[in-house]
Parts: sequence; C-alpha cells; structure tokens
Amino acid sequence: MTAYDPENVFAKILRNELPAHVVYEDEHTLAIMDIMPRAPGHCLIIPKAPARNILDVSETSLVAVTKTLRTVSRAAMKAFSADGITIHQFNEDAGGQVVYHLHFHIIPRHLSEPLSNNVQMADQDHLKGNAEKIRAAM
Amino acid sequence: MTAYDPENVFAKILRNELPAHVVYEDEHTLAIMDIMPRAPGHCLIIPKAPARNILDVSETSLVAVTKTLRTVSRAAMKAFSADGITIHQFNEDAGGQVVYHLHFHIIPRHLSEPLSNNVQMADQDHLKGNAEKIRAAM
Repeated sequence: MTAYDPENVFAKILRNELPAHVVYEDEHTLAIMDIMPRAPGHCLIIPKAPARNILDVSETSLVAVTKTLRTVSRAAMKAFSADGITIHQFNEDAGGQVVYHLHFHIIPRHLSEPLSNNVQMADQDHLKGNAEKIRAAM
Repeated sequence: MTAYDPENVFAKILRNELPAHVVYEDEHTLAIMDIMPRAPGHCLIIPKAPARNILDVSETSLVAVTKTLRTVSRAAMKAFSADGITIHQFNEDAGGQVVYHLHFHIIPRHLSEPLSNNVQMADQDHLKGNAEKIRAAM
C-alpha cells in the first residue's frame, strides 16, 4: 500500500495550513464541512492521526472516528430535518477516494431528493452557516 | 425514530431462521455475503444486538462493527486482488436503507470497473465460494 502523504489537504487542515468549517473536534477526530457538498449539511469525519484509509488506520483512530460519525450523524439529522443519512467511505482510487487521509462522508438526505453529483465549491458563508446548524444540534 | 423491527431479514439470519454465507463472526458482529452483490466479494457487517441504523446503535455495537469492518475490508482486498474498497452505510429510506438492521456494505473494487446497480440474486455456490475466499484471506 502507498505510504501516507502528509501533503494531502486534510493533513494541511489539521496543521492549520488550510482553513475549514469545523463542526466538531475532540482529542482524536475532527468533523468539517465538505467544500463540494452533494447535499446541504454534507460533512466529513477524519482522524487527527495520519491514516491513508481504512486499510491502514489504527484501532484507536478508527474507533474514535466511528463515535464521532454517530454523534455528527444524529446532529445532522436534526439540523437539516433530514429523513435519512447516507454514509460513504472510499478507499484507494478504485474505491472512489480522492483525498488520501481517511474520511467518512455524512450526507443528510430528504425523501425524493436524489443524491447530486455536485462538483462545485459551495459558497463559504453557506458552509459556515451549515456548520453552525450542526454544532447547534449537538 | 421508528422502533426496531425484529422481523427484518438480518434479525432472522441472526436467529438462524434464514441462511447466510458467513464470512466472519465474533461476540458482537457477523459478516455475511450480500445476496445481490454490486461486485464480486460484496459483503455486509452487522451487529448481533438489535439496532435499526447508526442513529440508534449502541457504542459497544458500533465499535465492534467498525473493527470487523476494517478486518474484513483488508481480507476482501487480498481475496479479490482488489484495487480499492467502497464502503456504504445507509440510514432510513431517504438515506438508501432497505433492511432495517444496521449494516455496512464492503464492496471490493477494481480500476475502470464502475459500480454495478445489480439487483439480481447471485448464485448460491458463487456466494459460498466468495465467502470462503475472504475467510481464507483473514
């Protein structure tokens, strides 16, 4: 397996070299808004420790990420009055991975609204507002 | 949130009222082949304790499921010489959920092979053979 690349964008966010809209943070994990949301409230859970994906992640990081995944999923349901949550986690290029730092996608869903294939950057104020909505629902 | 329905198919599998091709089992979790695989080796991780989805699952079950998710993902990579793994986890109808017992999908992927939208039941011998391949890779 390819070694972890510390120049990936999530590593830069963790080092405060790039900005992010933070939803939640604890000792081992960070939750941030996806800048190309496939639905309003689309956010990402990442471990703070380096991990390329689920194939090399430590048990400590994985367990912590999972707990945050549940916490933020519940909050996103409330914050967006969602009817459901779609969770995606991609490993390696063939698995759909684009950024090589482990992340779980949380996508709030509404009935009869198909998942968009959005590849547009969202407005920063919009992302900031959605991060605030999720934080307020925790 | 809707209460857990003990008549869902995974609950029946856990009670041995329905058959399944078992990949892995421990105190808290079971891994079985998806009978409508979207790629060869598509399998599912479920907790043994009742949980509708990620919104109501206990921490014990979720942590155990996550550890099994990592174990089986690694084995599936080897077993199918996969280039990647796609993980899906759906919550409520709007989120893509069909069976109302928490489950994570593990889908082995190969470069330049798009994910199929298969809704056909796979041949039982084929599923049995693929379950054996994953077990052998653990």
